[in-house]
Amino acid sequence: MTSNQAPAPARRLDAARNRDKILAAARTAFADPQAEVSMAEIARRAGVGMATLYRNFPGRRELLEALFADEVDAICAAAEAMGGADPKVAFTAWLHRFFAFITSKRPIATELLEHTDSANPIFGGNRDRVVAAARPLFAAAKEAHAVRDDLTLEQALDLVIAIATIHRDSRYVEPILQAAIDGLSPRRP
Amino acid sequence: MTSNQAPAPARRLDAARNRDKILAAARTAFADPQAEVSMAEIARRAGVGMATLYRNFPGRRELLEALFADEVDAICAAAEAMGGADPKVAFTAWLHRFFAFITSKRPIATELLEHTDSANPIFGGNRDRVVAAARPLFAAAKEAHAVRDDLTLEQALDLVIAIATIHRDSRYVEPILQAAIDGLSPRRP
Repeated sequence: MTSNQAPAPARRLDAARNRDKILAAARTAFADPQAEVSMAEIARRAGVGMATLYRNFPGRRELLEALFADEVDAICAAAEAMGGADPKVAFTAWLHRFFAFITSKRPIATELLEHTDSANPIFGGNRDRVVAAARPLFAAAKEAHAVRDDLTLEQALDLVIAIATIHRDSRYVEPILQAAIDGLSPRRP
Repeated sequence: MTSNQAPAPARRLDAARNRDKILAAARTAFADPQAEVSMAEIARRAGVGMATLYRNFPGRRELLEALFADEVDAICAAAEAMGGADPKVAFTAWLHRFFAFITSKRPIATELLEHTDSANPIFGGNRDRVVAAARPLFAAAKEAHAVRDDLTLEQALDLVIAIATIHRDSRYVEPILQAAIDGLSPRRP
């Protein structure tokens, strides 16, 4: 195999590194509510040229979708990683993580909605992926009687998503989230 | 006192009845998501002429504000009426009532926002009225150790308001609301 048939390993590694640098720069840029996040600004922050940026992401929408999918991967991986822990602790800890995921991805999701529409499979499909990843944690918590019988996983997630609509600082919202998550446990007589 | 100095009691009663009929008709009309709610339609449903309608409410906005203020009166009165009951039962029952109030007033509030803006004192002022009316119920529940120490009344209300953003049928949302309200109680060790 010669270098004009396929990229050499070093070049492939460079390309992957560039993609990661761009995604990391874009993630940081979108997390800063003051920042004007143009494609040029993302290239500048990532330390790559515009040609490299556009070779990786033909447009702003593709970049946003990749960022969004990356964060969904992370929240799904977190659910899988919690498999061994005490079922109640694992599910509760993951719900807190899920809350952080929703509030942190909000700027990206909001802008993505402007570039696309909510019927875009990236939304429905990602919700399905998150639900599937959390399913074993939820089942284990239910089996351990750590979750009330009258709630499904979807209802528990919608409760957490609802609390993310409270646009106040985390000192205000955290105790609300904690109360709601405690409420998912069965009531003791 | 003669009838050309002030309306006779019978005429004042008629006027009050007309106003009530208009508000009742408007409330029903706005509760029907299929209905086209024009001023003419409201007059028709109330069985009054357009002149009577406009004498009571010079415009659609004034009618919406009166409807909204009426519902706020009702939820405040409900808080006061619950004074004598067991503090936990009273506060919990009122939160369920408050939830029903938020979900039922949504069509009116949404349209009112189109005719005005959210800085309109009718919003902030009404929130303050509801908080003030619920304050004694909350204080009694807290005194009875029926509400966790780390939550304020505003946080409890924001939790209920957040759950009202879940746009699903009541069979889906009710258990979520119940779990959240249970979560307001202190955790037992």
